Amino acid sequence: MTATNTEADHISMRSGYWLATIGTKNVIDGATPLVLDAIDAMDLNASGAFCFADLGCADGGSSMALVRKSIEAVRAGNKSRQFQVIYTDQPGNDYNALFAIIHGLEKGPEPTFLDAHEGVFVSACGSSFYRQLLPDNSLDLGFSSTAMHWLSAKPCDISGHVQAVGASGCELAAFQRQARSDWETLLHHRAKELKPGGRLVLVNFCRDQQGRYLGHTEGADMFDTFNAVWQAMLAAGQITEDEYQRMTLPQYYNDVAEFSVPLMDGSSPVYRAGLRLESITTKVVECPYKLDFRQHGDAARFAENYIPTLRSWTQSTFMGGLNPQRDAGERATLIDRYYAAYAQRVLEEPEQHGMDYVHAYMVIRKE
Amino acid sequence: MTATNTEADHISMRSGYWLATIGTKNVIDGATPLVLDAIDAMDLNASGAFCFADLGCADGGSSMALVRKSIEAVRAGNKSRQFQVIYTDQPGNDYNALFAIIHGLEKGPEPTFLDAHEGVFVSACGSSFYRQLLPDNSLDLGFSSTAMHWLSAKPCDISGHVQAVGASGCELAAFQRQARSDWETLLHHRAKELKPGGRLVLVNFCRDQQGRYLGHTEGADMFDTFNAVWQAMLAAGQITEDEYQRMTLPQYYNDVAEFSVPLMDGSSPVYRAGLRLESITTKVVECPYKLDFRQHGDAARFAENYIPTLRSWTQSTFMGGLNPQRDAGERATLIDRYYAAYAQRVLEEPEQHGMDYVHAYMVIRKE
Repeated sequence: MTATNTEADHISMRSGYWLATIGTKNVIDGATPLVLDAIDAMDLNASGAFCFADLGCADGGSSMALVRKSIEAVRAGNKSRQFQVIYTDQPGNDYNALFAIIHGLEKGPEPTFLDAHEGVFVSACGSSFYRQLLPDNSLDLGFSSTAMHWLSAKPCDISGHVQAVGASGCELAAFQRQARSDWETLLHHRAKELKPGGRLVLVNFCRDQQGRYLGHTEGADMFDTFNAVWQAMLAAGQITEDEYQRMTLPQYYNDVAEFSVPLMDGSSPVYRAGLRLESITTKVVECPYKLDFRQHGDAARFAENYIPTLRSWTQSTFMGGLNPQRDAGERATLIDRYYAAYAQRVLEEPEQHGMDYVHAYMVIRKE
Repeated sequence: MTATNTEADHISMRSGYWLATIGTKNVIDGATPLVLDAIDAMDLNASGAFCFADLGCADGGSSMALVRKSIEAVRAGNKSRQFQVIYTDQPGNDYNALFAIIHGLEKGPEPTFLDAHEGVFVSACGSSFYRQLLPDNSLDLGFSSTAMHWLSAKPCDISGHVQAVGASGCELAAFQRQARSDWETLLHHRAKELKPGGRLVLVNFCRDQQGRYLGHTEGADMFDTFNAVWQAMLAAGQITEDEYQRMTLPQYYNDVAEFSVPLMDGSSPVYRAGLRLESITTKVVECPYKLDFRQHGDAARFAENYIPTLRSWTQSTFMGGLNPQRDAGERATLIDRYYAAYAQRVLEEPEQHGMDYVHAYMVIRKE
């Protein structure tokens, strides 16, 4: 499959993405000090606008506070510096929702920074981050959160599972090769785009030193549940074996070593292009829906709030796995049935569920 | 009213804009030599990417060939120069259609230039050209076609007509004041954005020396027809007097003198900011649907092809003139009835109809 619609998968509700993925806003809020420290470390009296890019922006809602604080940090160092914000995502992203939120025409998580600051210019780039997005030496700070685990292509289907965390043997090796190549490719493009002295702050899903990853921290493994629900539908004859095989998410979660290699190995093209790893740490941010459930104790309310966030980033892959010869209504019914079955598992054992975020937080400098 | 949805009014058909306004592509094709000459006159060995902006781009289809030829012209002068294309329009424009066409995911008038050229970067800016869109001194060439007649606000309703060409007295004076202020404002923003030595090529609707303007060259006056159809619906009790009053397009067509004043008067802020008028000419481009009709002679086919182009840029204003207390279905029915009545007039006297384009073609330099 191609990378279309994977950097930010969308639910069909206009401007609902940031709300359905409110946990990613918590992650960005936690990463904000890294961005502000990176800005403080830069020469803010250079000529031209300060250029900030949000790579894999979706509708821009989740990073709105980060952008505002970044503007404030630049202005604290140079109060007349112009500021350019470039939002990037796949061509198929909903840019109409993005501009509506950024221009204050639709509700975002806070008022748009455009009303509070002069000399701020916004644009959007509808290209995958597996291409060079911006001219050489034009970017001061590139930020990305919860986006770079999407591969540029699915190297193969995974037998008996839906995600590379459940892969082994040749299939795992194929995902590792793809992930290594993709990570090097996207860093190499960023190396060209960055000005010397520019920084990347990348907040990417990872497997941490304790083997934890998204939805695999305590209780049931979220990806095992995704898989088990499809297996149950296969066993019930609701989908075919071919369809089950295709339910493979084109994702890979690097560990710290995998993230670090091209930034530390002097022979890698990325290193030779000037990128240096300044810091990398991992952190778990707890699932906000799980935390809410611990307060209110209502399993139905938990399921109702939680399933849409799972659906927001899995539905397009799963829809694509269904036989296209089924008519659209039949496919929609199967997808609804799938998430209803997942919700049923949450209702039955709510304390087993939750999608804790496990991220690597990287700061990278261009020499 | 605000400027929302006026720089490029949309019909509801996705990616249909360029096709419904194919005449504007003919106009852009005719203006292309001015752009290529402007590029040839510039220093193409300057550092950084060559930055080209299409101001009021709609879905980008109409200018696709122009952008490709501009890339080729820059590369002819400097084969390694990177090229940045920035598409700008209102926040409410359909940017999803734009990116789909530019990335070749939906059909445009020719294959996308992105597949043919390396080192070309595309972004979109969802802000009105009545704001500064880009950082200071960042733009090499700003192009705009058939967009800058939309005012930033409607100064008043026009008694007994739908467009300023039918205004008089205080109402005409109010439109003239608004148009003068808007023209100066948008030029002043461009003066900041342009690099020294940069150029604007602006192709704007005008009133020419013979008093011709859009749809007023021969046969019936198009705006008189727009007005007459609403008057007939008012007389038939289908709309109210209040509604009729609000059917005023927030547009003004400058003449050559009005376009020239701020660029030639040494005391104007635009002149003082460095903008100089290099050339201005006017030209009529004949209505492609009228020309087709002269070939095929089928009035029904003429009306069927012609009415959508009128509808593409008038519908949102006219819909906004209807009483919002009417339910949406009733408003849609009235709008359908309006364009059906216009079509009926075309059927009855096809040789009286057509929308010849009358434009001023300006080349402006920043010192």
